[in-house]
Amino acid sequence: MNTREVELSGHIIDSLILPKVLDVIMDMGGDFKILEFEIGKRKTDPSYAKILVSAKTPSHLNKILDELSEIGASIAEIKEVELRAAEKDKVLPAGFYSTTNHPTFIFYEGEWRPVQDIEMDCMIVVDPKTKTAKCKPIGEIKKGDLVVVGREGIRVSPPERPRGKKGIFEFMGSAVSSEKPLIATIKRIASEITKVKNNKGKIALVAGPAVVHTGSAPIVAEMIREGFIDVLFAGNALATHDIENALYGTSLGICVKTGESVSRGHHHHIYAINEINRAGSIKAAVKKGILKEGIMYECVKNNIPFVLAGSIRDDGPLPDVITDVVEAQNEMRRYIREVDMVLMIATMLHSIAVGNLLPSHVKSICVDINPAAVTKLADRGSSQVVGVVTDVGAFLPILWEEIKKNK
Amino acid sequence: MNTREVELSGHIIDSLILPKVLDVIMDMGGDFKILEFEIGKRKTDPSYAKILVSAKTPSHLNKILDELSEIGASIAEIKEVELRAAEKDKVLPAGFYSTTNHPTFIFYEGEWRPVQDIEMDCMIVVDPKTKTAKCKPIGEIKKGDLVVVGREGIRVSPPERPRGKKGIFEFMGSAVSSEKPLIATIKRIASEITKVKNNKGKIALVAGPAVVHTGSAPIVAEMIREGFIDVLFAGNALATHDIENALYGTSLGICVKTGESVSRGHHHHIYAINEINRAGSIKAAVKKGILKEGIMYECVKNNIPFVLAGSIRDDGPLPDVITDVVEAQNEMRRYIREVDMVLMIATMLHSIAVGNLLPSHVKSICVDINPAAVTKLADRGSSQVVGVVTDVGAFLPILWEEIKKNK
Amino acid sequence: MNTREVELSGHIIDSLILPKVLDVIMDMGGDFKILEFEIGKRKTDPSYAKILVSAKTPSHLNKILDELSEIGASIAEIKEVELRAAEKDKVLPAGFYSTTNHPTFIFYEGEWRPVQDIEMDCMIVVDPKTKTAKCKPIGEIKKGDLVVVGREGIRVSPPERPRGKKGIFEFMGSAVSSEKPLIATIKRIASEITKVKNNKGKIALVAGPAVVHTGSAPIVAEMIREGFIDVLFAGNALATHDIENALYGTSLGICVKTGESVSRGHHHHIYAINEINRAGSIKAAVKKGILKEGIMYECVKNNIPFVLAGSIRDDGPLPDVITDVVEAQNEMRRYIREVDMVLMIATMLHSIAVGNLLPSHVKSICVDINPAAVTKLADRGSSQVVGVVTDVGAFLPILWEEIKKNK
Amino acid sequence: MNTREVELSGHIIDSLILPKVLDVIMDMGGDFKILEFEIGKRKTDPSYAKILVSAKTPSHLNKILDELSEIGASIAEIKEVELRAAEKDKVLPAGFYSTTNHPTFIFYEGEWRPVQDIEMDCMIVVDPKTKTAKCKPIGEIKKGDLVVVGREGIRVSPPERPRGKKGIFEFMGSAVSSEKPLIATIKRIASEITKVKNNKGKIALVAGPAVVHTGSAPIVAEMIREGFIDVLFAGNALATHDIENALYGTSLGICVKTGESVSRGHHHHIYAINEINRAGSIKAAVKKGILKEGIMYECVKNNIPFVLAGSIRDDGPLPDVITDVVEAQNEMRRYIREVDMVLMIATMLHSIAVGNLLPSHVKSICVDINPAAVTKLADRGSSQVVGVVTDVGAFLPILWEEIKKNK
Repeated sequence: MNTREVELSGHIIDSLILPKVLDVIMDMGGDFKILEFEIGKRKTDPSYAKILVSAKTPSHLNKILDELSEIGASIAEIKEVELRAAEKDKVLPAGFYSTTNHPTFIFYEGEWRPVQDIEMDCMIVVDPKTKTAKCKPIGEIKKGDLVVVGREGIRVSPPERPRGKKGIFEFMGSAVSSEKPLIATIKRIASEITKVKNNKGKIALVAGPAVVHTGSAPIVAEMIREGFIDVLFAGNALATHDIENALYGTSLGICVKTGESVSRGHHHHIYAINEINRAGSIKAAVKKGILKEGIMYECVKNNIPFVLAGSIRDDGPLPDVITDVVEAQNEMRRYIREVDMVLMIATMLHSIAVGNLLPSHVKSICVDINPAAVTKLADRGSSQVVGVVTDVGAFLPILWEEIKKNK
Repeated sequence: MNTREVELSGHIIDSLILPKVLDVIMDMGGDFKILEFEIGKRKTDPSYAKILVSAKTPSHLNKILDELSEIGASIAEIKEVELRAAEKDKVLPAGFYSTTNHPTFIFYEGEWRPVQDIEMDCMIVVDPKTKTAKCKPIGEIKKGDLVVVGREGIRVSPPERPRGKKGIFEFMGSAVSSEKPLIATIKRIASEITKVKNNKGKIALVAGPAVVHTGSAPIVAEMIREGFIDVLFAGNALATHDIENALYGTSLGICVKTGESVSRGHHHHIYAINEINRAGSIKAAVKKGILKEGIMYECVKNNIPFVLAGSIRDDGPLPDVITDVVEAQNEMRRYIREVDMVLMIATMLHSIAVGNLLPSHVKSICVDINPAAVTKLADRGSSQVVGVVTDVGAFLPILWEEIKKNK
Repeated sequence: MNTREVELSGHIIDSLILPKVLDVIMDMGGDFKILEFEIGKRKTDPSYAKILVSAKTPSHLNKILDELSEIGASIAEIKEVELRAAEKDKVLPAGFYSTTNHPTFIFYEGEWRPVQDIEMDCMIVVDPKTKTAKCKPIGEIKKGDLVVVGREGIRVSPPERPRGKKGIFEFMGSAVSSEKPLIATIKRIASEITKVKNNKGKIALVAGPAVVHTGSAPIVAEMIREGFIDVLFAGNALATHDIENALYGTSLGICVKTGESVSRGHHHHIYAINEINRAGSIKAAVKKGILKEGIMYECVKNNIPFVLAGSIRDDGPLPDVITDVVEAQNEMRRYIREVDMVLMIATMLHSIAVGNLLPSHVKSICVDINPAAVTKLADRGSSQVVGVVTDVGAFLPILWEEIKKNK
Repeated sequence: MNTREVELSGHIIDSLILPKVLDVIMDMGGDFKILEFEIGKRKTDPSYAKILVSAKTPSHLNKILDELSEIGASIAEIKEVELRAAEKDKVLPAGFYSTTNHPTFIFYEGEWRPVQDIEMDCMIVVDPKTKTAKCKPIGEIKKGDLVVVGREGIRVSPPERPRGKKGIFEFMGSAVSSEKPLIATIKRIASEITKVKNNKGKIALVAGPAVVHTGSAPIVAEMIREGFIDVLFAGNALATHDIENALYGTSLGICVKTGESVSRGHHHHIYAINEINRAGSIKAAVKKGILKEGIMYECVKNNIPFVLAGSIRDDGPLPDVITDVVEAQNEMRRYIREVDMVLMIATMLHSIAVGNLLPSHVKSICVDINPAAVTKLADRGSSQVVGVVTDVGAFLPILWEEIKKNK
């Protein structure tokens, strides 16, 4: 009796959900019979399939159903989600369900209920009083939390591929190549950014120090001043070199205007940290008139929140850096829920960190000269990220020109 | 009167110190006259030069002398080092001296005294009671600390190039290329490791999770068991995937033996973290018999210390991870002083972090398939690091074979 | 009346053919209605679909049908293929059909007939006497050749994805990553090679000079001696450095055994060319006892044909190099028809060249330390190539060990 | 009696010639005694050294002198250069001298005479009638040619490092990094180009098809029209995709304006070749009004010579492509003697090919998104090439803007 009916509905053929489901069943050594099948005869019609899955043992069946539920199949006879209490802090009950970054629903007390704050590799915790479900990372689990276990009553809804006139996200697919027409690609990104801002959406910038090294700090500063960036996620290096640039005109000791090495310039970043330490914080340095321009200056002036997360290779670090990485993650989570689009520029570490926290429906663009940076992001589950392999020092000026044309 | 005599001695021609000194003077707009010059007539003889440096203004002269002192010139009429007290915690006095990673001496109370715990981008703090000097990072500076300022009384001693039969470090130079004969290179590294261990030296391993992904965890485990690794520096990812591999046979959800994806395997690392959370720590998991093999297991069994530094992209993290990055750096400093050689395998983040802390005389090898990883390390001042561009999955098995041949 | 019925049959769902067909129609602004649809109820059953495609104009319809025919749809009411004579040498008739590298059939004189020597970006030329069809590159077209035009009567048969126990080709998919377990991957490749040789199949080796630089020439020589390579495609550089290695023990002037630079070694490759010029050819140098080991030596000794294609960057070149690239391509075509598997090692230029000539059913493996080499190959239409990103200097010794275990 | 005096003069300390000479002697197991040494006391004064080199055997001494002569040392007692006749075509006499790409002089009939057309890895052939010396590649050697052998009477003059205000070539050094300020770098290149053109100098462009793929063909076309390019070196791919772009608006089937795939677009390059085949040549296609814009069009219209060298991976190729690579090299040599600067854009194959032919005093810039492309060029002896790692699609538009500002 190791069989179970599963259902699929929606654009299951052209979103490749049906083929993937059949694939998974067979790759895992199961078998299937298609019981019902109605194909949408026109592109606007949804399709429907009911499939009988068979396996060798009940546990084999459960494994297959596990995988199917992750790619959007729902078990035909809906049962209530199963909950079990955490036995101690940070310890999960056996058989716990680990989330994807797609919108997820649980069938709890007779209704499909959305899981709030969805994020990959987390757990679903249910509050029986409010009948709500929430995503929690393992480090936040408290003794007694009611954690979803097993595979019944869970529905995952991966993004369907849209049709017709394509924005940058459909256009690029997962393509990562330095041989695409760059200007055409940047125009699309600019138009996507304009659209988000016209709809009062929020944009997060994740930026590495190469933004400053390559001379683009003034561009980013202007984008912040003009209201195109709503939150900044970065590390000690970006902030330090931005301040180094504002105070001494150098980045990593190289004069940003002329590209020449400056005498003792490789110590400037320590001088910059010292100045901020003396002032007490970046905000204080702006207030005291010490810091007068740049990315961090514009954040302070325009009340744009920033999260500077510490890293093991930091010098200093600046007093504004959150040196505890779990605290820093939680601070990032505070802002990330409201974000509609993410620009990730020249930082593999912070891009993967933000990618880990992002729901799959948030549009994300990752720009790096190294194709591996983009590939790794996708390998780690952030498949919604569109990669652009180009020189950051060229990308930002051209992007900003294009955005200004759209205004 | 903007002139000053400086002296150079040692193998100043073939170690390129003399040409560099003349270069710096002229590149910075100064002028020179060679007052005395004695060249070693044979390769074992040292050479000596006395040079009169002239500049446009006293501050111009100071800038030039600053640079010269970094590359090993000493000011001919030796003055006492100048000290000034820090006005508050983490804030340095004006004109503070920022260190290189080369052996450094200060002329204090009539004698040249070595600076202990030398590390790049730090400050020199003098204890007048013990008449000793110590390197401190900016974040450790306390109000009242006597910090070296200016440029008098400081001598830096960059490594001189050795002659004759070359070890791996002279052999490779700064060369980073995937077109070198791999086996010959690995043989040299193996012989260097053997030499260090025969001399009772200590070796640190800095490792990224690709060590586990590529199937080399058993090799590293064996190297630890056999006494070739004295301390491990890594992050949450290496430890998590090593434990994932020990418990489930997978790494990032891929079966390490067959290379095939395993059903729900991409959640295994969360399961692994959960098991260690339940046990309380990696050590506890070993004691309870839960963790029975792998890199972390061997560290515990053989009392090899490990420092797991947190990063903003961590899942979990494991209870053994030091989530505060400044604490983690300090923990790394505890071990790094005693290390004679460092192997950096497949982790740019942790390699740069360790590179930041290392004195220039510690032999370091950085292995990565990405040439940029090695280049970045050198760009950030760790010029003593020898880079090998190869596949980690192939490097470690071949290295271990060669080491065993030397036993 | 801009409509037409097309048919699909086979494993059209799990080979993704049906979704791709619907995709193409809609992406191109057409519309569809599914007239008949029978899904295979079990994994061994084929499926069938009849689809009515509608477009805006007859030329719009033709464009859509063009695309559909490339991915395996056949036009329901079969018409004869249309032929038109070439008006002069190397000039094609309007509307000519340009081939894919998949098995292709034309409906000519009432029957489906296979197109011989299929190769991408070529034309189909029909011989009315023998009623056979053949693939020809544009440079080989002669005045009067009957060239297939339009889209009627053409059927393309892209590979269907196999099920069940997977070989290296299904296992790797298009995945290109340096984070896969290397040894597991190599084991699969070794077993695929063993299978091909056990079935009396033929293997071509495409190799760049890095094979010699990294010290693997003796491995390749042994593989040839033991009968694992049936034809060698390479350039002047591989042959020159292999001979340099055989005569002087260096490659590009580096001693392959020790990895050290050899005095005047960077001129050794010119010396090697001079020796072969003096002998008259590689074969003559072997006969005269000048060349006594290495890759080229083993080719001569074991009667393994080699094609050395000239390149604009060649020094010399060796007398055996075909300096005319069109001649060299034609020489490669002579051997490539009979090949069952291709190993492409460390040469982007020659790998793309061979990829251009290969039918899609020939199993190909491309090994390079640079992920871009593999990506480019796939971008240029050789999607059947499996990429392995690793160090050539490690890959070949491990591969050969694994092959020998299978013997 | 295995000793010999050698002399060095010029800026031998700050050009690192003296240290290199001592290095070589000792690395090769020789010994030295410095007999005379006068150091230039001011930066404008040349220095002089006379060194006694000793070795173990006469042949050991010769090997050392060989190396020394390549880096600029001259043997103190000047002897006549030694000549020996080639015994047959393409075969060199024993002990032949293989050239560097630095300016070279031979002492022949009592005078130092320059070697014409210097090029690396070639031979020096002397015409006794005219008393001139010329560089010839091995493939051009004819029976009876008088070839320089041994090491007497040869002087090589590597470039000395200039001082003071630096152009792009001194500025960049061998640095290859994507973290430099891009705009500052491009400004310097633009100013160097402007300087060359203001001095009536000639600029060669070496370009790969990515120039067209990334949308920069109109920029290059404009640079040709405005007189900034004096000769074009490229392959079939650049010309084909440029013509594809001019005729169909696509490159490799991608619409260059919008970046979208075009139906059947991946066959457009074959259509383009067919059109040129029909016209007979690129020039004929321009005359007949078929080709109306683009890089190749502007070359024809402005009488800018182009050399299209064949490659083994070519489709077609176009009738203008020189399919024999030795012929193509010789055609390139015709133009390269007069060139003052070379821009190498996005083509490793053609850049190395041109690099092989270039004397070391010709300023060369290599632009590629792949750092390996630049590194390989330097590894192959073209150390004068300055590398810029950036996106070609961004580089050319910004460069052209900067050049226009200088007009």
